[in-house]
Amino acid sequence: MLIKKAKSYGFCFGVKRAVEIAEDSKNAVTLGPLIHNPLEIKRLAQNYNVNYVDSIDKIDDNIKRVIVRTHGIPKKELEKLKNKNIEIIDATCPFVKKPQEIVEEMSKAGYDIVIFGDINHPEIKGVMSYSVHERVFVVLDVKELKNIKLKEHIATVAQTTRKINDYLKITDYLIQNYKEVRVFNTICNATFENQDAVRELAKEADIMIIIGGKNSSNTKQLYNIASEYCESYLIENENEINPEWFKNKKLCGISAGASTPEWLVEKIISKIKEVTWN
Amino acid sequence: MLIKKAKSYGFCFGVKRAVEIAEDSKNAVTLGPLIHNPLEIKRLAQNYNVNYVDSIDKIDDNIKRVIVRTHGIPKKELEKLKNKNIEIIDATCPFVKKPQEIVEEMSKAGYDIVIFGDINHPEIKGVMSYSVHERVFVVLDVKELKNIKLKEHIATVAQTTRKINDYLKITDYLIQNYKEVRVFNTICNATFENQDAVRELAKEADIMIIIGGKNSSNTKQLYNIASEYCESYLIENENEINPEWFKNKKLCGISAGASTPEWLVEKIISKIKEVTWN
Repeated sequence: MLIKKAKSYGFCFGVKRAVEIAEDSKNAVTLGPLIHNPLEIKRLAQNYNVNYVDSIDKIDDNIKRVIVRTHGIPKKELEKLKNKNIEIIDATCPFVKKPQEIVEEMSKAGYDIVIFGDINHPEIKGVMSYSVHERVFVVLDVKELKNIKLKEHIATVAQTTRKINDYLKITDYLIQNYKEVRVFNTICNATFENQDAVRELAKEADIMIIIGGKNSSNTKQLYNIASEYCESYLIENENEINPEWFKNKKLCGISAGASTPEWLVEKIISKIKEVTWN
Repeated sequence: MLIKKAKSYGFCFGVKRAVEIAEDSKNAVTLGPLIHNPLEIKRLAQNYNVNYVDSIDKIDDNIKRVIVRTHGIPKKELEKLKNKNIEIIDATCPFVKKPQEIVEEMSKAGYDIVIFGDINHPEIKGVMSYSVHERVFVVLDVKELKNIKLKEHIATVAQTTRKINDYLKITDYLIQNYKEVRVFNTICNATFENQDAVRELAKEADIMIIIGGKNSSNTKQLYNIASEYCESYLIENENEINPEWFKNKKLCGISAGASTPEWLVEKIISKIKEVTWN
């Protein structure tokens, strides 16, 4: 049986980079889990002694290095870390760093700031903290925006994982109602690249195996797309594989959610090869 | 019979202002006709000796004052005027001056410039001339934009008379494809205010009289809107009025195209009153 991986799958650039940083930072702690995958968290703990703490207050004197994860953290928390006698390793995704810098610069230049995103998401908590003034507004839709009276000059950024069409609804409204709107497209295409790739592969495959957490929303999305085109299964580990699935199939496509490490993908491919041997 | 004028009609702010400037500038010439209305051009010539010339080269030594009309003129032509021994009276509409200033400032700051408008329109010829570099692109739709490879940072303005929804198609495309888009909404609502007002009035009127040139596109647009709601007539002068139109009508609504002077509106209202008397 032929096995083919999607052109793009699994970790995005920022997560790959953060995991490599963690592997290079033995005995560090991360502020919050580095990634939404318990197997990977366990691997980093066992092989590199990189564990995680829930908050800065839980960093005791025995800990000498702390890793800031891809989402970034609020500016004040970074300052709090700097006041500790500790090495700070910044794994903030460069695509998240960008809106942080934009918000800082634009707020200094006197612009009202509109952030399209979820105010409860760590990334957004970090990004908004970089405004030097209080006129920073986080919205999820135009309805929320209508309740806010902004000044004539506005700068806007988006949470990296949002959909561009939803952001355009926000920018259209702003352009219609204000004199100058400085739009920074800070959306990262990684999520959508995985989706496009799974669609492309599912069209030619006879069966698709999607690897990732059963309650991971981006993994479920990949599974839903694949299901439109062929028989598809969402699995978390190799033990779930049923040899029956592959009977009379020629091409098996593989994709994985954004939190699925490469080693897990390889393990599952080996298992598929094993069960379909002969 | 009751006669009611639309809440907004006729000259926009910029044209009103330009006509007042012309009335205050006896013996001047305008560069191109001040307004698309031959009756008004004639009145300014007869009462104020304000005539027009087609080009700067036709300004001879006998002429001591020149009026720049609402559309503005290219920067180089303004410089050419400054080199003549002549008083320059600038009647450029402030809403046109704004995009000129923005294009100058943004090009100096290194932005690529995208102008949404008609490259053959005098307003756009003026606006684009204010760029200090050559990377200024005038487009009418997204198709044209797709043929241009822009730099990552773009500033954009629109011709003042364009529709906002068409401009949003341009800005949506730019936002999707480039890192920073600095959108200046330079569209003037005057045209649309006249349209909204004619619609509102036509709903309650029994008959609508629209005053303006029969080949003026904005006047025809007003007539089309009025016709949707009640019996409507487009006239250029008071001689076209037919008393029969007003039989059994209670409320007559009045609107006028953007180049129709107020004195003509008043003349026509007097005539309607005259023919409907008793």
